Amino acid sequence: MAGGGAAASALSTPWRSLLQRALDGNAHLKHSTFFQLATVGGGGRPANRTVVFRGFQEQSDKIQINTDARSNKIGEIRNCSFGEICWYFTDTWEQFRISGFIDVIDGSNPEPVKLQLRERAWFGSSVKSRLQYLGPCPGLPIPDDDLIKDAHLDPSAGPVDAFCLLVLDPEKVY
Amino acid sequence: MAGGGAAASALSTPWRSLLQRALDGNAHLKHSTFFQLATVGGGGRPANRTVVFRGFQEQSDKIQINTDARSNKIGEIRNCSFGEICWYFTDTWEQFRISGFIDVIDGSNPEPVKLQLRERAWFGSSVKSRLQYLGPCPGLPIPDDDLIKDAHLDPSAGPVDAFCLLVLDPEKVY
Repeated sequence: MAGGGAAASALSTPWRSLLQRALDGNAHLKHSTFFQLATVGGGGRPANRTVVFRGFQEQSDKIQINTDARSNKIGEIRNCSFGEICWYFTDTWEQFRISGFIDVIDGSNPEPVKLQLRERAWFGSSVKSRLQYLGPCPGLPIPDDDLIKDAHLDPSAGPVDAFCLLVLDPEKVY
Repeated sequence: MAGGGAAASALSTPWRSLLQRALDGNAHLKHSTFFQLATVGGGGRPANRTVVFRGFQEQSDKIQINTDARSNKIGEIRNCSFGEICWYFTDTWEQFRISGFIDVIDGSNPEPVKLQLRERAWFGSSVKSRLQYLGPCPGLPIPDDDLIKDAHLDPSAGPVDAFCLLVLDPEKVY
């Protein structure tokens, strides 16, 4: 669980302990690690979608999200790098709003340290989860599920081009 | 239930029937009528929060949300009138993204038809739900719960100043 990993590196900011308590209290629900990420899209209009919490970056409060480099949000975030997470815990009725700068780390990133983070996020995902990055472009209907079912992935192979790590650095939490 | 009311006036757009099916399939969960509303806030940054679905406006696909006229989102929406709803159904793993123009209807609205809609939304809420608009300004800590507990509200009295109806007119659903 992403939440479990977070506990080990939790910093002492008050919101981190409250968030960890919410994660623990809702851990029996698979969707407790899902939250909504708002960004600013085309024409300055808001965009909003559900993404999965992939843990905190080690020794920090930075929040990691895996995404497909071909998704619309990548272009949106490159254009306006701010995001606001709305994380609602359905069993305890708690809400965390976390806003901050988002760093987009794809395979072309010039910083070796960030490429390492991306690689770690890749290997930290299940093989099933990695397989979706071999599928057709996200947001398009999948013509044939067998395309994904039959895809082969060497579990020791590094991240594919479509794999992108987003890192949100919390600036305001409320 | 808001979802039940929606069925009676459902239009024939494909997304409305899919959404109604999701509402029906998740009706046993109180939080199935909660969704996240993204807007653009100060400095052009995204804002995101959980709100409650209050049904569709009669004979239309317009989505109603009750809110407090003193909340930050009112100023944000007056500045940029677009919103994107991300509605995630936790039992059936379905997501609806609904973007469109948001109309802010508070007590100062010059259109009698809109004031009637606001009044209808007020009386369509439970008395307990109406009481929160008599409380302190939202977003601030509540110093004493008794302030709300002891508040008196005549059930036949019309909407208070703090009560505001938001109506999102869907332009794109995906």
